[in-house]
Amino acid sequence: MSLEAGRVYNFNPGPGTMPLDVLKEVQAEFLNFKDSGESIVEISHRAPQYAEVHAKAKADIKELMGLGDDYEVLFMTGGASTQFALLPLNFATKEHPGSYVLSGSFAEKAYKEAVNLDRAAVVASSKETGYHHVPQQDELTIDPNAAYVHVCYNNTIYGTEYHYVPDTKGVPLFADMSSDMLSRPVDFQKFDFIYAGVQKNLGPAGVTLVVAKKSFLEKSPEKLPTMFKYSTFLKKDSLFNTPPAFCIYFVGKVAAWIKAQGGLKAMEERNTKKAALLYNAIDASNGFYAGHADKVSRSNMNVTFRLPSEDLEKKFIAEAAEKKLCGVKGHRSVGGMRASIYNAMPYEGVELLADFMEKFRKANA
Amino acid sequence: MSLEAGRVYNFNPGPGTMPLDVLKEVQAEFLNFKDSGESIVEISHRAPQYAEVHAKAKADIKELMGLGDDYEVLFMTGGASTQFALLPLNFATKEHPGSYVLSGSFAEKAYKEAVNLDRAAVVASSKETGYHHVPQQDELTIDPNAAYVHVCYNNTIYGTEYHYVPDTKGVPLFADMSSDMLSRPVDFQKFDFIYAGVQKNLGPAGVTLVVAKKSFLEKSPEKLPTMFKYSTFLKKDSLFNTPPAFCIYFVGKVAAWIKAQGGLKAMEERNTKKAALLYNAIDASNGFYAGHADKVSRSNMNVTFRLPSEDLEKKFIAEAAEKKLCGVKGHRSVGGMRASIYNAMPYEGVELLADFMEKFRKANA
Repeated sequence: MSLEAGRVYNFNPGPGTMPLDVLKEVQAEFLNFKDSGESIVEISHRAPQYAEVHAKAKADIKELMGLGDDYEVLFMTGGASTQFALLPLNFATKEHPGSYVLSGSFAEKAYKEAVNLDRAAVVASSKETGYHHVPQQDELTIDPNAAYVHVCYNNTIYGTEYHYVPDTKGVPLFADMSSDMLSRPVDFQKFDFIYAGVQKNLGPAGVTLVVAKKSFLEKSPEKLPTMFKYSTFLKKDSLFNTPPAFCIYFVGKVAAWIKAQGGLKAMEERNTKKAALLYNAIDASNGFYAGHADKVSRSNMNVTFRLPSEDLEKKFIAEAAEKKLCGVKGHRSVGGMRASIYNAMPYEGVELLADFMEKFRKANA
Repeated sequence: MSLEAGRVYNFNPGPGTMPLDVLKEVQAEFLNFKDSGESIVEISHRAPQYAEVHAKAKADIKELMGLGDDYEVLFMTGGASTQFALLPLNFATKEHPGSYVLSGSFAEKAYKEAVNLDRAAVVASSKETGYHHVPQQDELTIDPNAAYVHVCYNNTIYGTEYHYVPDTKGVPLFADMSSDMLSRPVDFQKFDFIYAGVQKNLGPAGVTLVVAKKSFLEKSPEKLPTMFKYSTFLKKDSLFNTPPAFCIYFVGKVAAWIKAQGGLKAMEERNTKKAALLYNAIDASNGFYAGHADKVSRSNMNVTFRLPSEDLEKKFIAEAAEKKLCGVKGHRSVGGMRASIYNAMPYEGVELLADFMEKFRKANA
């Protein structure tokens, strides 16, 4: 698949690139959704045509994750940042705090919201060593009294990712999977609560995916505001008020696209191959490219690396953009480069970037 | 403007019909937004092309409303239902409660969220008389100690609307304008805080518009969760986390479309003419059609009426749908019919409905 006229390879960290086939489908049916005579942005969320989309998106996501009737899919809003507050409000107390593994900026943000509510504890942290890796099993100190253990499963800014499922000794396991959701098979049943802003792997910013055990979602305290209770979304099938229907519809199409590609196993193979191209370019560069992540925690979603100087980094960004390789600038807190290669980034795009890295090194080393 | 192939006239209460010209523009540029090589659903919310859209949408909305630098436009999520909780959390206390005018179902919902937080009082209510009108100025008992007076400016379910701006004797005036936002000129400067889910007059469900005095937005208590504080959105220009960019982009296009139509004055003329067609059909029906709203509070957005029997109501709905007049069924709590005729409903659609009402009456009276 080569680039269509005018399109670029979009390596931005999120919003991220989406499958071109899905974009085209959405475009084609935009004025008349399922012969309703209305656009998907106009149709009632109580209409049967929408109800079918809503139900199928949920079913496909659960099927991809291999989850059964004990789990429910919710469509919420406000991004992961809102979940950071809702988790302690719904599930933690001062006596039974949420306990956090600190592995990067967003893991810290989640923790700070729980601290602000006075319901937080720390399980482990890799902050002092510069977030080059995610804490490994032997670094975790589990408090059996905690309400949950919270991990950020992929750290977009640092380019690190969990390659194991933490053993939390029976304490419920919660994960922010905003930046690697549905990018690989995971033993999802070991998690009690998973959430993800969708704008990296799954759809347009504006809906937050929650996949969690029903037994947990039912636990919201009665006195919380209606829209802050997971139980409201569980009872009303995420239709207590008008949902962000366009975003849900788009996520449903992406879930169907992932299924058509062969599911999470196929995604993982593809994503691992793509990431290997870039990590090989780093490892073969004799130190010209310095990866940020330790090998044990290298992310298949965000590949982060520095160049020998900031001037060379600026040159790299500019020359890459000329070749339609866009959005490779790293986050200011790490500097350097970050190539985000989510599900929908074509292999060809990554191949071109790896090739460019090699040529750039030869020209500038 | 006649109907395009396959399209229908959509009288649903929300999500509502959108301007066809806007739908076509969005469709045309869906694969390549402003020559970025990316779709609007893919582009970074930090990209200059998006920044321009974000700023212009805000500026156009303020221009349409005739508001200056003392007001700010925020793009939030979670709908009016989330605002119902955020208002008392940010601005009210037990000692200085939010005080509510009860004029319909959503006004009641807003009130109940404040009651749940123990920060609520009632200014006036038309519940006992069946919500046939919105409380008038002489019915309001303003408590000078209240944090704010809250009104629901158009009541979608009952088909009633304020045709005056309440004099609150110096107490800040807050309004839920979800179902009549930007449908007519209002002396918006008399309001301290206005909010609206956009899916009726302004865009796809998924963004909540807030237009409020900066001096109010700054007041959020420090200890609230980050995403529950208006001050976060004010300080970060609604970009603290990834905003629902597609919805904001669409709202921006609708605001530009309203400007191109002649602004709020032109909208009001058009909407009043449309509503008059239906109210005239009701008033000229010798009681065959019984309007729900008292004349003093008739809404120009939602026209509600009953027929002599439920059988006739079912027949009306079915025959209207055959003529591509869709979504006229009323809310279960009022029964009968509701024709929602938001900004984007063409005059021709309402004319056809009025014509159908007349023919149906003659055939069935």
